[in-house]
Amino acid sequence: MTRPSHRALDEKRPLKITRHFTCHAEGSVLVETGDTQVICTASVDNTVPPFLRGKGQGWVTAEYGMLPRSTGSRMAREAARGKQSGRTQEIQRLIGRSLRAAVDLTALGENTIVVDCDVIQADGGTRTASITGACVAMVDAIRHMQRVGDIASEPLQHLVAAVSVGIYQGQPVLDLDYAEDSTAETDMNVVMDENGGIIEVQGTAEGATFSRSEMDSMMALAEKGILELIDAQREALSGD
Amino acid sequence: MTRPSHRALDEKRPLKITRHFTCHAEGSVLVETGDTQVICTASVDNTVPPFLRGKGQGWVTAEYGMLPRSTGSRMAREAARGKQSGRTQEIQRLIGRSLRAAVDLTALGENTIVVDCDVIQADGGTRTASITGACVAMVDAIRHMQRVGDIASEPLQHLVAAVSVGIYQGQPVLDLDYAEDSTAETDMNVVMDENGGIIEVQGTAEGATFSRSEMDSMMALAEKGILELIDAQREALSGD
Amino acid sequence: MTRPSHRALDEKRPLKITRHFTCHAEGSVLVETGDTQVICTASVDNTVPPFLRGKGQGWVTAEYGMLPRSTGSRMAREAARGKQSGRTQEIQRLIGRSLRAAVDLTALGENTIVVDCDVIQADGGTRTASITGACVAMVDAIRHMQRVGDIASEPLQHLVAAVSVGIYQGQPVLDLDYAEDSTAETDMNVVMDENGGIIEVQGTAEGATFSRSEMDSMMALAEKGILELIDAQREALSGD
Amino acid sequence: MTRPSHRALDEKRPLKITRHFTCHAEGSVLVETGDTQVICTASVDNTVPPFLRGKGQGWVTAEYGMLPRSTGSRMAREAARGKQSGRTQEIQRLIGRSLRAAVDLTALGENTIVVDCDVIQADGGTRTASITGACVAMVDAIRHMQRVGDIASEPLQHLVAAVSVGIYQGQPVLDLDYAEDSTAETDMNVVMDENGGIIEVQGTAEGATFSRSEMDSMMALAEKGILELIDAQREALSGD
Amino acid sequence: MTRPSHRALDEKRPLKITRHFTCHAEGSVLVETGDTQVICTASVDNTVPPFLRGKGQGWVTAEYGMLPRSTGSRMAREAARGKQSGRTQEIQRLIGRSLRAAVDLTALGENTIVVDCDVIQADGGTRTASITGACVAMVDAIRHMQRVGDIASEPLQHLVAAVSVGIYQGQPVLDLDYAEDSTAETDMNVVMDENGGIIEVQGTAEGATFSRSEMDSMMALAEKGILELIDAQREALSGD
Amino acid sequence: MTRPSHRALDEKRPLKITRHFTCHAEGSVLVETGDTQVICTASVDNTVPPFLRGKGQGWVTAEYGMLPRSTGSRMAREAARGKQSGRTQEIQRLIGRSLRAAVDLTALGENTIVVDCDVIQADGGTRTASITGACVAMVDAIRHMQRVGDIASEPLQHLVAAVSVGIYQGQPVLDLDYAEDSTAETDMNVVMDENGGIIEVQGTAEGATFSRSEMDSMMALAEKGILELIDAQREALSGD
Repeated sequence: MTRPSHRALDEKRPLKITRHFTCHAEGSVLVETGDTQVICTASVDNTVPPFLRGKGQGWVTAEYGMLPRSTGSRMAREAARGKQSGRTQEIQRLIGRSLRAAVDLTALGENTIVVDCDVIQADGGTRTASITGACVAMVDAIRHMQRVGDIASEPLQHLVAAVSVGIYQGQPVLDLDYAEDSTAETDMNVVMDENGGIIEVQGTAEGATFSRSEMDSMMALAEKGILELIDAQREALSGD
Repeated sequence: MTRPSHRALDEKRPLKITRHFTCHAEGSVLVETGDTQVICTASVDNTVPPFLRGKGQGWVTAEYGMLPRSTGSRMAREAARGKQSGRTQEIQRLIGRSLRAAVDLTALGENTIVVDCDVIQADGGTRTASITGACVAMVDAIRHMQRVGDIASEPLQHLVAAVSVGIYQGQPVLDLDYAEDSTAETDMNVVMDENGGIIEVQGTAEGATFSRSEMDSMMALAEKGILELIDAQREALSGD
Repeated sequence: MTRPSHRALDEKRPLKITRHFTCHAEGSVLVETGDTQVICTASVDNTVPPFLRGKGQGWVTAEYGMLPRSTGSRMAREAARGKQSGRTQEIQRLIGRSLRAAVDLTALGENTIVVDCDVIQADGGTRTASITGACVAMVDAIRHMQRVGDIASEPLQHLVAAVSVGIYQGQPVLDLDYAEDSTAETDMNVVMDENGGIIEVQGTAEGATFSRSEMDSMMALAEKGILELIDAQREALSGD
Repeated sequence: MTRPSHRALDEKRPLKITRHFTCHAEGSVLVETGDTQVICTASVDNTVPPFLRGKGQGWVTAEYGMLPRSTGSRMAREAARGKQSGRTQEIQRLIGRSLRAAVDLTALGENTIVVDCDVIQADGGTRTASITGACVAMVDAIRHMQRVGDIASEPLQHLVAAVSVGIYQGQPVLDLDYAEDSTAETDMNVVMDENGGIIEVQGTAEGATFSRSEMDSMMALAEKGILELIDAQREALSGD
Repeated sequence: MTRPSHRALDEKRPLKITRHFTCHAEGSVLVETGDTQVICTASVDNTVPPFLRGKGQGWVTAEYGMLPRSTGSRMAREAARGKQSGRTQEIQRLIGRSLRAAVDLTALGENTIVVDCDVIQADGGTRTASITGACVAMVDAIRHMQRVGDIASEPLQHLVAAVSVGIYQGQPVLDLDYAEDSTAETDMNVVMDENGGIIEVQGTAEGATFSRSEMDSMMALAEKGILELIDAQREALSGD
Repeated sequence: MTRPSHRALDEKRPLKITRHFTCHAEGSVLVETGDTQVICTASVDNTVPPFLRGKGQGWVTAEYGMLPRSTGSRMAREAARGKQSGRTQEIQRLIGRSLRAAVDLTALGENTIVVDCDVIQADGGTRTASITGACVAMVDAIRHMQRVGDIASEPLQHLVAAVSVGIYQGQPVLDLDYAEDSTAETDMNVVMDENGGIIEVQGTAEGATFSRSEMDSMMALAEKGILELIDAQREALSGD
């Protein structure tokens, strides 16, 4: 079996992380995984949502959107339709949970970091690219907060990144692009930290079911890919 | 470690399936797992959504809701708030995918089955109970369609059921109730068919991450529980 | 003329009141009038709406909904459509006014009782059944407030109940079921207290108009029916 | 007891009907009852709503609104709030039912008359004034349809009008203005045709309940008032 | 070239300003320019919007609406559609900016004037008529505030009025009615104060573009028309 | 007077046009004017809106949005708020009108071009930059339609571009950035074609009014700037 992109089964797409992509946000990253491109901006707000007021902790949340023509055919603009789709809400909830798993909310103080993930070009894997890029933008925002004295201690506990794995033509593969994703038998998104600790697993059979041993194989691929992604995050963050 | 309910680690709550619960729907089931109670009704519509017209196949979809006081404190009514929450949409998308995995949509013909899952009392595990009950309601609707001649062949491929598993006080446990769910380190919802084929896995770390071996243990518990649930579905369906 | 249900002209359907139907609410009643089934839950909130703050009185309000397949053909879910219909709003305003007519709002203190009436099976008369059941749920909530010390005095002034009457094939009849309601010439909903004091009358001619003497006959039937309903409420409340 | 307006108990406010009030609508009436002023325009649409297509009958429907400063303090504009209140929907449903009771929908052919009732100044009784004015606007629209050949036969069966009655300081009174309405013990809106046939009765106890004999007295007042209103409609329609 | 209305090229339609048109508002004006009729009511609110709290200044804002049948064919009611059109929002923003240009917001104190402009009959130029009428209603509201002691100093700096100009059949013309507006090559709305100071210019080419010298000619016409309108405002305000 | 950017009074910011910026759209342009950056994508749809069906002509429309953190402080996401602001609607209507002024809609055939303008970084002048970039994206879409045979003739009549001018510290200046825009006395947006024909003028006094001679000076600056912008568009389109 040959993948449409001629990648090896355990080969992810090239990752490119551009920090300081736009000028206003405390953290701003353009993340590219192959042809998928997402702008991730992290904004600091020195308040917390009502349900956390006075509890001595902070909050991290995320919003997700796709530009109408980030995809092959134009999608209706959610702002014009007047509501976010179920898919959008599902994805932004996932990104938010993943980012919160990376930080000590108490060390954040009563501050909120909002990360906006806006897809400008889509070729599969937009939610996992968003998580990988959002983590870097969040780190930049945390560094900013430390510089300006918003926080004294270190809220960052570990980096997090995400990748999709799947069963494509009967084989477990790493990092599905759109050509694979749209015909894969199984699609699974995995979020892990830099120690291989699992934060989220969301696997869906499309057509055929999958077995526990296939799941094991996919998890092994995911771990390999995520550790590579986290190396790349670390490298991107090492410069300034 | 003792579970709040004094159940064994691999012991699910008692399941009760009441068919023909309300009189109008083609399939109507009250499913109870412990104190969690969900009314699942399956309605047959002899059309398909616009995106499927003329394609010679059917559709199965689901909607989910909670009565405002199904929970410990009253939640705002979604109809009054004017929109469904992200959680609601996420759950009803999950139920729909799970049910579609149980049927051959082509054998359904150009017909739609809509399954409504309305929680009247919640004690954890409402989404998995919904799937387990919805499958039975859907089977009753399919039987109805066969009786009235809407369909000639057999769309049902296998029964599906769902259960939650988690890490509670460091131990993998089966079928979390609200007391466990609200403090568990990890919560994972699993949907399988009667052959142990995996349809959906959604695992979320709450606080601590989980390891691949913990994931394996949870999957084994899920498989045990789901096969018990499917036995109970089969028994419920055997009477009339 | 024979009624479809073979009931006498002044004979209402059997009423069944099940208290403590669900476990979380301060008052929870399943009310059944014939095949019409409504879950009425009363929730206590120790605040009042903004327009009443600091005025030393409480509030009672109601919300109403129908499960999508409580009826012969499935109705769109109001939460999914994004708004409540005019009919729904009209009914919940009627239930709220009827319940407030049963209590001394000052004796409630600055507390609110919200009663949710959710129809799980409809066969005509859902709004009147809702009022009859909601009153019992509200009494249970008031008793709860007294037990926990939220209120010291007695807000309940009298029981209230409701019934529909109509002109069916030229004859005044009591308590229309769906078969009658859908073809009746006139449909009138009446809410009274246990002394026969009128709280609400809403009569609508469907097709032919009705005369003042027909209205008198319907009011007499309504009074007979409501006093029977209030007897049943009293009996249900006498146990515990 | 003296009424705030010094009117006799059975004396309605002066009614003024100005036809052809605006220039575009097929029927356009400014109706004034005392200080209450409502613009009623009837628009003809040569189609019917989807649920009536091909059934060989027409439809009459109504919409109601209040200008934000038609009242003593400014109300939020419903178009800006993004939804119509329950009260608005209740009123426009009432107006629509009342108008449909005046016509033979089959004789209308597959045409729709939409009557818009917009309150420009409110002093109590806006819904009943709307019905009284809307009926005249509808008649003008029907006459227009006959002139241009949209319909051949006569859909108008009788005129309809409406008035409020109530118990004010213990006495049944006719046609409550705002000063009375806001403190009345009971408020009842009655719609009748020119033969005294009852189309709608909606009575609500505010505070104290009312008895069947009080209801009789109010109905007698309503009949007197409505017959006077219909005389005025007839006179307004006699000129051109 | 002859204008459909036989007016001279620089001749505006007759203007009629009726103050105290409805009884509740602090300022209430019916403004008529030819067949265009708009009710403008100014309401005083002794608070300011959140973004101005504690800043020692007031606010003036406007809302705009059209009755559904103010136009040749009925438009859907914006309250029923659940949102205001882009055109409506654009117009109400324009009216608000124009009125704020007429007053010293600091002299208003922490008070808000809301002006509602509701078109009851439309024949072109509804937005400019709204501004002209709204200014008079606002002055009446300011006078009311001075009488009751809400403000001590004088917030009114100058009167403002507005008119449309355009290129119709190749000629610059003043004050387009609907017959001209719907076929004009260019349509330009101009708002000025009583000294000819420009507050807003909004010119749009419909079909052909326009030149800078045509723009000059239109501005000269606009200035002539607006100064005449302001004379009429002054006269209307001189009586009481 | 020195401008914050040290530009000459008649000096616009550097313009950069990057074509083929994203890969899916028929036209995709990143337009940068100084620090303002907008992604403009043109999508071809081989249908027309309902109001144009069967009329033998096409349509061009535009949508506009800002990424939440394109600005100095984060704005709420319009998709999450459930509606587009009045400002957004006003801008997208302006862009659409400007683009339609550039093409012969009949030559487009029954096709629609939708141009999405999404601001990723804002420093003043986002609506004028959007028009300038959108025109280039639209031309690329038209060239695509000609290549694939959607259209045979030439719909493009001339290029259009836009710039803002204003009165800043008493002086007319060209192309305001945010530092100027937020304190300018007057702000005017001008859209012209390559012959200096005016398509749109929108001038607003902020604080002080402006005179007709100031308006003339601003129009002269606008013409100079726009002709420079159109040269740059032409150059960008000359490559491929």
